[in-house]
Amino acid sequence: ARARDLGVAPGILQPGPLNAITDVEGVLVGHVTLRKGRDIRTGATAILPHPGDLFEDKVPAAVVVGNGFGKLMGATQIRELGEIETPIVLTNTLNVPEAAAAIIEWTLGRPGHEGVVSVNAVVGETNDSGLNDIRRRALTPKLIRQAIETAKPGPVEEGAVGAGAGTIAFGWKGGIGASSRVLPDALGGWTVGVLVQSNFGGVLTVDGAPVGEALGRHFLKDYVDDGDADGSVMIVVATDAPLSDRNLERLARRALAGLARTGASMTNGSGDYVIAFSTAESVRRTPARRSQAVYGVAEVSNQYLSPLSQAVIEATEEAVLNSLFMAETTQGYDSAGGRARAIEAIPLDEVREILARYGRGEE
Amino acid sequence: ARARDLGVAPGILQPGPLNAITDVEGVLVGHVTLRKGRDIRTGATAILPHPGDLFEDKVPAAVVVGNGFGKLMGATQIRELGEIETPIVLTNTLNVPEAAAAIIEWTLGRPGHEGVVSVNAVVGETNDSGLNDIRRRALTPKLIRQAIETAKPGPVEEGAVGAGAGTIAFGWKGGIGASSRVLPDALGGWTVGVLVQSNFGGVLTVDGAPVGEALGRHFLKDYVDDGDADGSVMIVVATDAPLSDRNLERLARRALAGLARTGASMTNGSGDYVIAFSTAESVRRTPARRSQAVYGVAEVSNQYLSPLSQAVIEATEEAVLNSLFMAETTQGYDSAGGRARAIEAIPLDEVREILARYGRGEE
Amino acid sequence: ARARDLGVAPGILQPGPLNAITDVEGVLVGHVTLRKGRDIRTGATAILPHPGDLFEDKVPAAVVVGNGFGKLMGATQIRELGEIETPIVLTNTLNVPEAAAAIIEWTLGRPGHEGVVSVNAVVGETNDSGLNDIRRRALTPKLIRQAIETAKPGPVEEGAVGAGAGTIAFGWKGGIGASSRVLPDALGGWTVGVLVQSNFGGVLTVDGAPVGEALGRHFLKDYVDDGDADGSVMIVVATDAPLSDRNLERLARRALAGLARTGASMTNGSGDYVIAFSTAESVRRTPARRSQAVYGVAEVSNQYLSPLSQAVIEATEEAVLNSLFMAETTQGYDSAGGRARAIEAIPLDEVREILARYGRGEE
Amino acid sequence: ARARDLGVAPGILQPGPLNAITDVEGVLVGHVTLRKGRDIRTGATAILPHPGDLFEDKVPAAVVVGNGFGKLMGATQIRELGEIETPIVLTNTLNVPEAAAAIIEWTLGRPGHEGVVSVNAVVGETNDSGLNDIRRRALTPKLIRQAIETAKPGPVEEGAVGAGAGTIAFGWKGGIGASSRVLPDALGGWTVGVLVQSNFGGVLTVDGAPVGEALGRHFLKDYVDDGDADGSVMIVVATDAPLSDRNLERLARRALAGLARTGASMTNGSGDYVIAFSTAESVRRTPARRSQAVYGVAEVSNQYLSPLSQAVIEATEEAVLNSLFMAETTQGYDSAGGRARAIEAIPLDEVREILARYGRGEE
Repeated sequence: ARARDLGVAPGILQPGPLNAITDVEGVLVGHVTLRKGRDIRTGATAILPHPGDLFEDKVPAAVVVGNGFGKLMGATQIRELGEIETPIVLTNTLNVPEAAAAIIEWTLGRPGHEGVVSVNAVVGETNDSGLNDIRRRALTPKLIRQAIETAKPGPVEEGAVGAGAGTIAFGWKGGIGASSRVLPDALGGWTVGVLVQSNFGGVLTVDGAPVGEALGRHFLKDYVDDGDADGSVMIVVATDAPLSDRNLERLARRALAGLARTGASMTNGSGDYVIAFSTAESVRRTPARRSQAVYGVAEVSNQYLSPLSQAVIEATEEAVLNSLFMAETTQGYDSAGGRARAIEAIPLDEVREILARYGRGEE
Repeated sequence: ARARDLGVAPGILQPGPLNAITDVEGVLVGHVTLRKGRDIRTGATAILPHPGDLFEDKVPAAVVVGNGFGKLMGATQIRELGEIETPIVLTNTLNVPEAAAAIIEWTLGRPGHEGVVSVNAVVGETNDSGLNDIRRRALTPKLIRQAIETAKPGPVEEGAVGAGAGTIAFGWKGGIGASSRVLPDALGGWTVGVLVQSNFGGVLTVDGAPVGEALGRHFLKDYVDDGDADGSVMIVVATDAPLSDRNLERLARRALAGLARTGASMTNGSGDYVIAFSTAESVRRTPARRSQAVYGVAEVSNQYLSPLSQAVIEATEEAVLNSLFMAETTQGYDSAGGRARAIEAIPLDEVREILARYGRGEE
Repeated sequence: ARARDLGVAPGILQPGPLNAITDVEGVLVGHVTLRKGRDIRTGATAILPHPGDLFEDKVPAAVVVGNGFGKLMGATQIRELGEIETPIVLTNTLNVPEAAAAIIEWTLGRPGHEGVVSVNAVVGETNDSGLNDIRRRALTPKLIRQAIETAKPGPVEEGAVGAGAGTIAFGWKGGIGASSRVLPDALGGWTVGVLVQSNFGGVLTVDGAPVGEALGRHFLKDYVDDGDADGSVMIVVATDAPLSDRNLERLARRALAGLARTGASMTNGSGDYVIAFSTAESVRRTPARRSQAVYGVAEVSNQYLSPLSQAVIEATEEAVLNSLFMAETTQGYDSAGGRARAIEAIPLDEVREILARYGRGEE
Repeated sequence: ARARDLGVAPGILQPGPLNAITDVEGVLVGHVTLRKGRDIRTGATAILPHPGDLFEDKVPAAVVVGNGFGKLMGATQIRELGEIETPIVLTNTLNVPEAAAAIIEWTLGRPGHEGVVSVNAVVGETNDSGLNDIRRRALTPKLIRQAIETAKPGPVEEGAVGAGAGTIAFGWKGGIGASSRVLPDALGGWTVGVLVQSNFGGVLTVDGAPVGEALGRHFLKDYVDDGDADGSVMIVVATDAPLSDRNLERLARRALAGLARTGASMTNGSGDYVIAFSTAESVRRTPARRSQAVYGVAEVSNQYLSPLSQAVIEATEEAVLNSLFMAETTQGYDSAGGRARAIEAIPLDEVREILARYGRGEE
């Protein structure tokens, strides 16, 4: 069940029709999931900012590092040029090279790209070694490429799927989650969509209710850092607001506030990253624009960032909850321990009870 | 009343005896409050990392910018050298120069400082123009210096005092708040203390309970950005953990997660800053150490940052709540509107009821 | 004499008619110099991006920190919003508060600013304690304000004037210097202007010729760090190219390459900063633009940054040389040593000879 | 010939015995060069900070971005944790994934690493598409691994070798270059070593002499941006000074000043990166140290950074010159143009003449 099925609706703004990153028009999402034998539980998730030629029609973008214990690829060029020119692929920590190879090969091979000699592949990751035999580096460029090629609009599959197949959050099965918010017309009318790959720990709070404590499973519970709180989270933010790269960076920073509201402890070992981009045609870096010395571009007034901030905070919080609530109990392999392991789905019945006790959830 | 008087105790860790930044041994806090006529409601708050010679015995430190719509002084040198060499003074936006002058003059005049020719004054601010005739720039270096000279250990005065005399948070009277957390010995046994100057907006959440919505006062309530959400927050974090400047920066970043949990919307116009320092003697940059080509210094292992993260998140959340709950209704002057104005204290009786409704507060 | 009077013309591009920052149309520069008794040798220099209402018609801007041992004020808001809303004032290290007060008061007092309650004053500094009794903090806001109010277009007074009255560079008298470059039309036709306040050390190179070594005066000459290499440099870059704040930051970073070519050693104690802004109307943040949710703005294509880079590198190198070559021998006070001191102007006749020996200088 | 064979010895400090990055004890360098048919001219260069277990005994490190148009991998984790745990591999732009795969596989396979599940591979690149059919992505992880496995102390092979096989600098054949400086004992006695992969443009200056102009080949020569100035440079800095990650970042920033002195134009399309690390045992992050809550670590006093700055500036300048002077004329393939192409070695006889004309070179 998604968070709203339990009556959990964080914040004051309304979601879009899909309550997903794909509510931002043009955004495509694809998953490839690899479950092999008892030990391989991994995959990749591709987010395409628009269905056109991404390399030619680059989108303004920004990366924000919450905690940089991660292997994100592409960061410095995004920061320098303020743009993304490829699909964004999320995967596991040790398959980042294969994801980058997939992106590069896919880009080189697209029609019209015969002269392309430089590609800034954007790859994010979290470490699924808690359920996946990560050292086998099971994903190939060919497999990951399927995530790119099957990316589509519409509802986003959530939970233990794609890059979320083997992740763990708050001690429960985590994975992929999505959500969105739509601003009222007076505030710009724009949509903000979020997709997360959750693999981190803390003291779970569901719309303010102390679910982690009530379930007796949280960071520092036994005053030992047992690693449950480590891991990472990748947050991808899309919007149709015509934001500059500078304002996209500001928006991305706000996504971390949504993460904080779920009870993330932001531990040392967590790689917490946000990638944000705008799909607005009026800010796209097209060949026509780039070929001129000076071109015209749209920009959102700084003060309109405020409601967008509220939107991204809420959507991020809900996307994390969706990633948890949609994930199924998963049998896999504990790479560090070297043995089989199961991570349970969060028990939604108990969550419902706890929510009720704290005046939250379905009315 | 402080948050704990209402039974509000965010998180899973215990506070220190004072539940204030001054639980970190050696830290001194001083306020000077200026209330003059009907229009001046402002002041300054000084935080001294230790009672010794701050300029000679510098402390490792870091600054983190949540949103940089603010006039913080001293940031680039703290970042370059990783240290603070003066008191930290908080005040109103337009009196930053006078606060810097106070710090410089106080530093130049201390015994043994006859040869000092360079001082990196650290000044933070929020904009109290909602209750203070800020354009009159009523504070003088001499007055602000009193905050430095009267700084002392022990309980911290909170609410509408010092740099918090004229601030507004979540539509209610804000001000100065403090809190702390002490880690169990197995996690290092260190203390993390926080002091905030709250002057920002959002959708107030008290330990998870949707107090702002229940009270009908929050950001975007009428789908207009009426500025209530703007303003700023200064967060000062002290710890006796012997952290390097790099790890202090990481700790400072986590304070923003505590801020997020109070419902801050992190709007465009907010200047959200964190200054963090360590009081540990083993990391202090003393003349004896600095005079050597190579000296020995302590460092906390990266993984011990995780429980410290949890501590600073909790203490920041509670310090913000204390700043609200301790503030009194204040009559003053709306500088932008050019007229008298009162900002009410948050109605604690109603807050108590709301908390009860959401399973929170006193048991 | 200016560098070109000695036949020194670094680079391959042409300067503008004034060979100064004021070649960028609209830019105004003002100095106030304070020489009092034997001990006070200091001043302030104001740079106004345009003659209009700076607070209302903000200019896109960026700050880059080469080495952050300095007290620059205003940095975090420039970075967050990408804009400057006041004059830029350069002065001595311990009078930064007075410069900031001058800017704030001047801004508050301008017609139409009756409702202004927040001002991000931009102040840079270098430490003139080698010739100025800096601890007396001799400059007042009133005095510094004169630099703002007398700012004008046209030739820029250079050498031991304004904020350069007491500075030292490469062991010789430093001060204010300016230069510019104009791009050919095919490369955009824009002008880049630079103004520096030089107060740093290293191994002086004049258009490639090893002048510092030939004169026997340079950093580490006697294998002791005698402080001559310390100090700082402030670099202000103006351009009429319609650059975004992101591209202005990139341009500002390149100014450090020009600095490097003069032989700067970029020592620990140096505060090396670059502030860059665009005067182009098409990127100005006017009330008309800011009042809209979305507005149109110009942007220079990334690849056009390349010739602009070359321009700022050359103009910075030449501005530093002008600051040295135009400075006069100055009698003053050594604040650290507590005694009178004279710093000589670089001996231009010897420089001429050295240049000739290295195939440089007048032909 | 190396620069010193022409009498070119930039700066005032002395090089180490090898005048290479390997003068820093323990540093190993390995190359693999791939020349296949007429079109493949590429390779990889590995730098190992020490011969021990890099993953267990991590070295403090920093990355600095001069211009971020590049695909450097590993940046965010180096910045967060201030350390490197793998070899550094340089290669061509489109083979970054294969280099990362090589590093990960090599690290996973080392004895004692059976439990490793997270590896932060550090890969730098420049774009050799001017001489190499880069789109074929000819390098495999297996091949690149040879560079790691054959890395050794001693003289560093320079010029058109390893990652420099196909690069172009200042319009001439570029490649790998190295240099070093040793500080006198009174300044710490430390060694700074540099290795560069040169692939950028500008207006070549050799120890101050305007060689690029004299040869009639430089950026903007015909007032057209013909791309010669684009490209990139990777700079790797090693030192045995026990620097913290903060001071390594400062040192890395200074390397860009050395680059500037060669006449680099720092154009839009250049990816200019510096990676710096310390080999000192006293700052190494060993398991013994990391396992403690608090450990002792060495730190160089800030003021000792000044002579180290001078050292890295000089060594970087000379390393770039060595990369040019040691490179041989290379026949290859122009990927963008789709045809055969030769890039000449810089004509050393002419360079010698020019140097003499400008009072430089052999005495």
